[in-house]
Amino acid sequence: MMASSASEPKKLIATGSSGFVGRHFCSLYGGVSLDDQEGVVDLRDVRRVRSAIEFARPEVVVHLAAQSSVAASFDDPAATFSVNLLGTLNLLQALSTIKFQGVFLYVGSADVYGQIRETEIPAREDQLLHPRSPYAVSKVAAEALCYQWSQTHDFRMVLARPFNQIGPGQNIRFAVADFARQIVEIRRGRRPPFLVTGDIDVTRDFTDVRDAVRAYRMLLDGGQNGEIYNICSGQERSLRSIVEELLRIAGIQADLQTDTSRLRPNEQRRVAGDPDKIRSAVGWSPQIPITKTLADILQAAEEN
Amino acid sequence: MMASSASEPKKLIATGSSGFVGRHFCSLYGGVSLDDQEGVVDLRDVRRVRSAIEFARPEVVVHLAAQSSVAASFDDPAATFSVNLLGTLNLLQALSTIKFQGVFLYVGSADVYGQIRETEIPAREDQLLHPRSPYAVSKVAAEALCYQWSQTHDFRMVLARPFNQIGPGQNIRFAVADFARQIVEIRRGRRPPFLVTGDIDVTRDFTDVRDAVRAYRMLLDGGQNGEIYNICSGQERSLRSIVEELLRIAGIQADLQTDTSRLRPNEQRRVAGDPDKIRSAVGWSPQIPITKTLADILQAAEEN
Repeated sequence: MMASSASEPKKLIATGSSGFVGRHFCSLYGGVSLDDQEGVVDLRDVRRVRSAIEFARPEVVVHLAAQSSVAASFDDPAATFSVNLLGTLNLLQALSTIKFQGVFLYVGSADVYGQIRETEIPAREDQLLHPRSPYAVSKVAAEALCYQWSQTHDFRMVLARPFNQIGPGQNIRFAVADFARQIVEIRRGRRPPFLVTGDIDVTRDFTDVRDAVRAYRMLLDGGQNGEIYNICSGQERSLRSIVEELLRIAGIQADLQTDTSRLRPNEQRRVAGDPDKIRSAVGWSPQIPITKTLADILQAAEEN
Repeated sequence: MMASSASEPKKLIATGSSGFVGRHFCSLYGGVSLDDQEGVVDLRDVRRVRSAIEFARPEVVVHLAAQSSVAASFDDPAATFSVNLLGTLNLLQALSTIKFQGVFLYVGSADVYGQIRETEIPAREDQLLHPRSPYAVSKVAAEALCYQWSQTHDFRMVLARPFNQIGPGQNIRFAVADFARQIVEIRRGRRPPFLVTGDIDVTRDFTDVRDAVRAYRMLLDGGQNGEIYNICSGQERSLRSIVEELLRIAGIQADLQTDTSRLRPNEQRRVAGDPDKIRSAVGWSPQIPITKTLADILQAAEEN
């Protein structure tokens, strides 16, 4: 075995490494998945989590794995709590058994804000939480758990609250990925020139996933123990502007059709986050222009 | 069957009815426990919860049952989450199956505030939460779940955050009950005149449990959906002042001895809550003087 040197990179594991964000994180910054002989470890399985952690002995952990579908969380809240809260607990407890004293980045979700009043936009980290789905509740709970560990254990525990992340390779159950897929199909003549959407007059705060994972990397280096950081652009964009830009880049025209089954009665109309805290703490701000993000999403959809 | 009339009292069930608070609530305001042929229903048991709710068909629910030991929550966080979060979910889902549209009072804990800064005393409901035990995390999580249901279901969901509740019949793992027991034993000559304590120079906000359950009753009638109410006196009292008052009422003298095993390194020094919100909402304020509360605690300890 080689002797360890101070400059040697620390052993980094990423849960959820096969997911949209995890793949981007690992391809840019390394990091291995938490797996064992049987494959990727289910975080609900205490014994496998513990033995995989004992084998991996990580020094840095990025915790991305989650049941992330809001719709699925309404169908089975208990399953969502089990993965997102108890899975996080299993991971933390396994790290305690190896006396982990490294850095743990918990990646939560801006869904914890839930209902944001117009006067509270852009949302700051010290805002009250008003979760409106079991998914959001599970992320409030896991965030509270990680905060508690920041106070009671020898980890450096950093918490992230990403807003909408978009980029190449996202599942088409997310709106922007679905628009890109439809546009590619229209361009190929496989679909009539109608782009089907839900309510596109809502606004969201989009960050390119590659910018977001760079934020995670920077928080691992410089985030403070027990502190929560929004990951967002601070820019409020309507879904309509995203659709129009995708069509412009693709060079096609399409009529927009509203699918009423995609309308949600209690949809949050406007969302934007305040990125000041992470900018001040570690100097991060998003770098990739929205046009490049959307072009890359279209290209990935072409290649798929 | 008798016909139902408008003035007929609504069918009220209380979970945790055999606990300290539950016994006081049920003896003053009625309410039956959630039980079936096998006895009191374990809230972790989905099927029994559902069948007991289907049988009971409550119109009003006071949810008091919880794993409430902070120490036990550190030993087994998963068990605490299971009872306090998943148990609450099981109860809510069972109520949905009977299309419950009544009032649900979730009784949480001021432990959700966790670390309170001196400048934030007395704690208000809109303060950020900094939970410092798995118990507190479980109560943050269950509160978030109940808040979510207030937004997504046809319940009137009211949330309470009680501070320290004391009164006759409390378990001696709580400080004031333990002091009373020691004083009774000293008075009977069964113990030398030394009263063993932890750190009694911390302050807390005490409410007589009978005042607290009256607050619950008033919140059932007038609490607003989705709103959280502190249950507290607003009075900050040191544990030392409580000990001295207990000794005075008992008419004995005892030397105070600090048991260092009872000292907690990260103990919150000062706690007080702001009761303005519940006072404004339903007109509740505590009525029972601390001297009567302590006298009744001593008398109960005598009779035990």
